[in-house]
Amino acid sequence: MPNFAQRMLDMEPTAKIIRGLFNAMSDADTISFGGGAPAKEGLPVDIVREICNDVLTTEKRGMEALQYGSVLGVLDLRQAVADVLLAPKGMQASVDELLIVNGGLETMNLLCQVYINPGDVILVESPTFVHCVEIFEMFQAKCIAVECDADGMQMEDLEEKIQQYHPKMVYVIPTFQNPTGKTLPTERRKKMAELGSQYDVIILEDDPYQELRYSGEVLPPIKCFDQTGHTVYANSFSKIFSPGSRLGYVYADKEIIIRLFDAKTATNSHTSTLAQVICAEFFRRGYYPEHLKKICAIHRERRDAMMACIEKYFPEGTKKVYPDGGLFTWVELPGKINTTELLKEANERKVHYIAGEGFFVEGNGKGQNCMRISFGNVTPEQIEIGMKRLGDLICSK
Amino acid sequence: MPNFAQRMLDMEPTAKIIRGLFNAMSDADTISFGGGAPAKEGLPVDIVREICNDVLTTEKRGMEALQYGSVLGVLDLRQAVADVLLAPKGMQASVDELLIVNGGLETMNLLCQVYINPGDVILVESPTFVHCVEIFEMFQAKCIAVECDADGMQMEDLEEKIQQYHPKMVYVIPTFQNPTGKTLPTERRKKMAELGSQYDVIILEDDPYQELRYSGEVLPPIKCFDQTGHTVYANSFSKIFSPGSRLGYVYADKEIIIRLFDAKTATNSHTSTLAQVICAEFFRRGYYPEHLKKICAIHRERRDAMMACIEKYFPEGTKKVYPDGGLFTWVELPGKINTTELLKEANERKVHYIAGEGFFVEGNGKGQNCMRISFGNVTPEQIEIGMKRLGDLICSK
Repeated sequence: MPNFAQRMLDMEPTAKIIRGLFNAMSDADTISFGGGAPAKEGLPVDIVREICNDVLTTEKRGMEALQYGSVLGVLDLRQAVADVLLAPKGMQASVDELLIVNGGLETMNLLCQVYINPGDVILVESPTFVHCVEIFEMFQAKCIAVECDADGMQMEDLEEKIQQYHPKMVYVIPTFQNPTGKTLPTERRKKMAELGSQYDVIILEDDPYQELRYSGEVLPPIKCFDQTGHTVYANSFSKIFSPGSRLGYVYADKEIIIRLFDAKTATNSHTSTLAQVICAEFFRRGYYPEHLKKICAIHRERRDAMMACIEKYFPEGTKKVYPDGGLFTWVELPGKINTTELLKEANERKVHYIAGEGFFVEGNGKGQNCMRISFGNVTPEQIEIGMKRLGDLICSK
Repeated sequence: MPNFAQRMLDMEPTAKIIRGLFNAMSDADTISFGGGAPAKEGLPVDIVREICNDVLTTEKRGMEALQYGSVLGVLDLRQAVADVLLAPKGMQASVDELLIVNGGLETMNLLCQVYINPGDVILVESPTFVHCVEIFEMFQAKCIAVECDADGMQMEDLEEKIQQYHPKMVYVIPTFQNPTGKTLPTERRKKMAELGSQYDVIILEDDPYQELRYSGEVLPPIKCFDQTGHTVYANSFSKIFSPGSRLGYVYADKEIIIRLFDAKTATNSHTSTLAQVICAEFFRRGYYPEHLKKICAIHRERRDAMMACIEKYFPEGTKKVYPDGGLFTWVELPGKINTTELLKEANERKVHYIAGEGFFVEGNGKGQNCMRISFGNVTPEQIEIGMKRLGDLICSK
């Protein structure tokens, strides 16, 4: 058989991790703190049924929903993004500065198509979202970690690394970060936008958890401080509407949107019209504010249960992030416990998490005593049982 | 702003054509023989409504449809592809040799991710589908045309060009080809599979029109003759179910599927679960055979109307392809009419087609007197009016 492309070999180590993550969650008896899914109890099943019924009863709208659509996305949905999701955060986007994508991650892929040549540097957080590292590696970018503290990326180190490596892009999840749950403070957001402009670097702001806030004050996105168009704002409907509809959006300057349009046509033409029409109608009918309240309440209860269980069942000396929102917390175990090795035993005890090591691009053994724990798609009861299983295992070491 | 990646510059000439195609069809008064959409009257609006209603009433299934799903795709849909679509054509696929993609075109993108290094050669038909050329150029492949006759690719020229250029891939639409409507005969299909094996070249068989046959005998896909796994079979649900659901599939050897899995996770994780669940249910409930009959009848009538109108309104000496199925015919005008120049006047007369030149990768002015005419999403009445407008214009030259 013909050789695979070089990029497939370059991405293989991370692809192996990703394959492992996708293949992990199969056992029905296992309580999984692994994946990044939101609460299934919060999915708007009844609302979607009602909308489908109405949309598909009107002949014209039904045909539109099932026919080819616009590359940039269904106009009503782009308008809803501008009016309902961006304007209240201080971002004044026009519909031609928006592109609807097939799930939030697709923006990372398309922006790499637009900007990344093999060998280009992308600066990332330490730790960062491993799934996006896979994307960056498929484009043969070199990922370099910026030092992080309890508030996320350190601006001094970011500026030094920009000067040292001349990156094409900085990838950051500023709010309830994946995997740590940390949030970047306002002054750092402002600084990051300024650094992008000053050094001519794209700031890729990935903000899918922003709306899921359970405590603390709402912060403005980095994009709000962008004066030059260097910040690209990526978000997803997976957490606030439905992951299975595979919808996300990107807000960027028109010059970038034109190229994203090209990359999108050469990837899959456009995003599912049916899913977009349903989602647009969800916003048009005004369901969003109540729905958001509901899912925040569900996830807040789970966050609180999770934090209490770490306190209760994990050994003294355990460090943890208290996330003001999102789906994750990050735990650093005391002593010399290797979380990658521990996972096998944890799975035998029917509990699952994601080992910390894979989230670091440094590759120097960092994060070996860490774990990402998701509280999104587990009930408080499951959290109690699963965290006791996990805590007992850890304490037995 | 930072420079765009080299691939964006390499694809720019074709991207410009594609942008033009997408931006063309806006005027409601214009009768368009341009795009490749199937008849909107054939879209299964009522069936989809019924299915949504049922699926989203069952709590568990509703949640599944709106939650994250498998990278390879919803199991029921892959099983339907194997049982209902592939087995009757003589292809015995297992579910782990299948990947569900976000619309048929995505397979071309993912297979390029897996195989194409910059500078690799892809052999294509002359003319070929310009949208896929855009994809190949985004991967910085060099597209080289194989000579075609009334039956499609000429096998002697294909073999010579394989020997001369050592391509990584041959891209072919064997059935009711886009843009010409031609169909590759069985002996050439067999030969093509053999050439792939013999010279270690991937044969990318793109077969989205296969099911839309209105006359003539069903032919086996190239994949049926593949003994070595070199042929990759791509197909779409756009023509037989709904373009707006953005669903397609690829059938390939497991070794290739594993890499396509990696490329898919690094593109958009997976295809819309909701769309897949609806489509799977469409097959499970047995709607497909009757639906296919219905849409073939609609499109057959339009094909016949179109061929009669070319006869009636186009000048003597016009050459045309009689397509046994699909959505297109290909017309070669007599004399020195340039169809790219003519298009402006045609649009003023409120009729639209796609000029032939853009479908040739040779770039030597080939196809300047040709046009692709789609009869998919225009009624027989619109065909009559639109073709009279177009014929009158051509005859006035």
